[in-house]
Amino acid sequence: MDSSKIEPKTLRGFHDRLPPETLKKEFLIDQLKAVFKLFGFLPIETPHLEYLETLKGEEGEISKQIFHFKDQGDRDVGLRFDLTVPLARFIAQYKNEVGLPFKRYAIGNVFRGERPQAGRYREFTQCDFDIVGTRSVLADAEILLVVVKSLDIISVKDFVVKINHRCLMNAVAFHLGLPEATPLLRAIDKLDKIGEDGVLKELLETTSLSEDSIRWTFELFKKRGLQLITHLEETLNNDLPLVRENLTRGSSETREIISLLGNDERFELDLTVARGLGYYTGMVFETVLKDRAELGSISSGGRYDDLVETFSSDSIPGVGGSIGLDRLLVYLESREAGSQVKVFIPLEDDGKKHNLFMIADKLRDAHIPCEVYPEAHKMKKQFDYATRWGHSHIIFLNGDNSLRLRDSKTRVDTTCPDIEAVLRHLSPKL
Amino acid sequence: MDSSKIEPKTLRGFHDRLPPETLKKEFLIDQLKAVFKLFGFLPIETPHLEYLETLKGEEGEISKQIFHFKDQGDRDVGLRFDLTVPLARFIAQYKNEVGLPFKRYAIGNVFRGERPQAGRYREFTQCDFDIVGTRSVLADAEILLVVVKSLDIISVKDFVVKINHRCLMNAVAFHLGLPEATPLLRAIDKLDKIGEDGVLKELLETTSLSEDSIRWTFELFKKRGLQLITHLEETLNNDLPLVRENLTRGSSETREIISLLGNDERFELDLTVARGLGYYTGMVFETVLKDRAELGSISSGGRYDDLVETFSSDSIPGVGGSIGLDRLLVYLESREAGSQVKVFIPLEDDGKKHNLFMIADKLRDAHIPCEVYPEAHKMKKQFDYATRWGHSHIIFLNGDNSLRLRDSKTRVDTTCPDIEAVLRHLSPKL
Repeated sequence: MDSSKIEPKTLRGFHDRLPPETLKKEFLIDQLKAVFKLFGFLPIETPHLEYLETLKGEEGEISKQIFHFKDQGDRDVGLRFDLTVPLARFIAQYKNEVGLPFKRYAIGNVFRGERPQAGRYREFTQCDFDIVGTRSVLADAEILLVVVKSLDIISVKDFVVKINHRCLMNAVAFHLGLPEATPLLRAIDKLDKIGEDGVLKELLETTSLSEDSIRWTFELFKKRGLQLITHLEETLNNDLPLVRENLTRGSSETREIISLLGNDERFELDLTVARGLGYYTGMVFETVLKDRAELGSISSGGRYDDLVETFSSDSIPGVGGSIGLDRLLVYLESREAGSQVKVFIPLEDDGKKHNLFMIADKLRDAHIPCEVYPEAHKMKKQFDYATRWGHSHIIFLNGDNSLRLRDSKTRVDTTCPDIEAVLRHLSPKL
Repeated sequence: MDSSKIEPKTLRGFHDRLPPETLKKEFLIDQLKAVFKLFGFLPIETPHLEYLETLKGEEGEISKQIFHFKDQGDRDVGLRFDLTVPLARFIAQYKNEVGLPFKRYAIGNVFRGERPQAGRYREFTQCDFDIVGTRSVLADAEILLVVVKSLDIISVKDFVVKINHRCLMNAVAFHLGLPEATPLLRAIDKLDKIGEDGVLKELLETTSLSEDSIRWTFELFKKRGLQLITHLEETLNNDLPLVRENLTRGSSETREIISLLGNDERFELDLTVARGLGYYTGMVFETVLKDRAELGSISSGGRYDDLVETFSSDSIPGVGGSIGLDRLLVYLESREAGSQVKVFIPLEDDGKKHNLFMIADKLRDAHIPCEVYPEAHKMKKQFDYATRWGHSHIIFLNGDNSLRLRDSKTRVDTTCPDIEAVLRHLSPKL
């Protein structure tokens, strides 16, 4: 390679999308937007770049992964790492303009300087939907319904939305005599990695819990569904006010949410849904594909008590979810309808270009996608191009100005006296 | 304001979009994509972040405006400032995968640290379409046709696409005895700002041109349309090989392009279309709104001889255009169809929430957008919410479980025995 030339490559952890994948992604996004709109969610857009202090407001693991720098005006700025922090800033800034409750969706790219792994990139696309400014369980149920409707519309099958409630976990922690639920949430996070024996050892070392208590908790983590709530109500020590309060809220809200969802069996109560340590304060959920559990959660979220605390002394609650588009792209086959009409017009000789250009224009006026090959290359090269990108028909211009319409699949030719006859053939409804 | 709180604000030169503007933008993008696809263009996606040397490959004014920094791996990286440099890298990297010719569109945000002005932001959205790998005038004409079809579909009226050809300008420069066209391109750029007298003074000082030559050029700049080419052919000194070569290519290509476009009067030949100093090598164009010339060009582009020279010793020509979405957003009124069905369901009392939730679900199954207000607030507050975001109908649940469907515009109520009757009313085709 010429040493004066720059090697064309993307940054580590970043990637390009070629047309087939980009078409698939655009199709997915269109479908998701249609679902969001069906529920009355409205789109907002915020910049990719924010003040660093806006992004760092909520300190945590992620804030170490922020791409940040000083801009030309010596400001500390950073690329957004999620769409929730920008939502918080947005609500603090515009709550009077948009009013509350406010239902927004946002689809955009976020950036995290984490170690790249298979299927995980440093720039990826998030699809978020949130209902801000209400504590109603209707909103919790609606967010969960958006998840299943979204997966339905893009034909994802065999998924389960695992639901938990932060208060149920708190009740268990207080029942065990722990001052907070954090050790249990940490334990859940580590069960997959170090197993029950490893977690048992750690909890014995770091907490006051007895081995019996820990083993009892492990059994609890294996239970599923509404009987889990009944079990907790029968087992936990209701004489302790903190247990009682948390159990009452956790169980009544969870029951109501599941009832609003029509006891759909695609939702499953599961105490091991942790969704990180802080932030969430009520219902939490994640969604896994039964046959592709290794992809992790394809949609997750939950209820938070105070979205805007970084920016304002107002307390604004909300509930939201996020769909992991990049993971779904890995999972889904192309959904572009292969049966769509798309016409290819080869340029047999340069003298025909004016006529072919006009023919193409008439097809497009009838909303039929088509293209004229730009040069009078050998036919094989022209057909290779057409085949690469897909086409349903080919049009040849005959010497007598009649047209030959070829169905690319059946290879049957139809001679049409003029372009109007072609249009009638391609769009029988005209 | 509480001093421990962070002020919620965007960076200078950056901005948020609230729902009405975002809906309008999404609508515009959908329409533009439909046009691009009608012509067989395919989407690609590249990262927002690139190696700085990739972006700086082509040194110029813009490279000073790049947002750049060292990332966690001590790499020099930058935010893309246009979609053309990433296209060049993409073509150099994937030309074998995609093959040539290749027609791509890309819609995405770009970043420039320039002084913010009214309607100009440091982050803005570009819509680019290019045909790479062919010198055919069919491709030039197709790009221009995409421009007018795009503006047609979004109902922009009264625009003119001003076309020029770099070779025509070269021919004029060589005719005047200049070694290159740069002084003339600079003069065009300054005519608006300092007027003929200012440019005259400058050209007298910096070039060998006589006052007569300069005044002759100014007259040339006022001519429009194909008679301009005839005039050049009659006036320029064809004995000079450089004049002859440039005039021959410039006039024949321009004539052919305009003929392919069917002599549409929305295209106008205009020597003052400069489009910057370097880069373009053939046809160039810009598009202005007759009644909003102050917005500047809403779509521009042209032909370039060598897209990938930074990355490869291959020589790959192309032609492309870009539509300035942000400028169009300023110009266009909202295009969201106001007559669309959108149902609002107030929550009169909390006990009705299960029934209302089910009603909403059935409406959505029939693809009717609807939402249940999440809390049993006062009716006025609920209706304020509905009015703010627009709705066409309201559904009330009567005590006997029949439904009252109100047309929000006419305020006429219709009592429906069940949800099926509501659906028949809202979607007569069902």
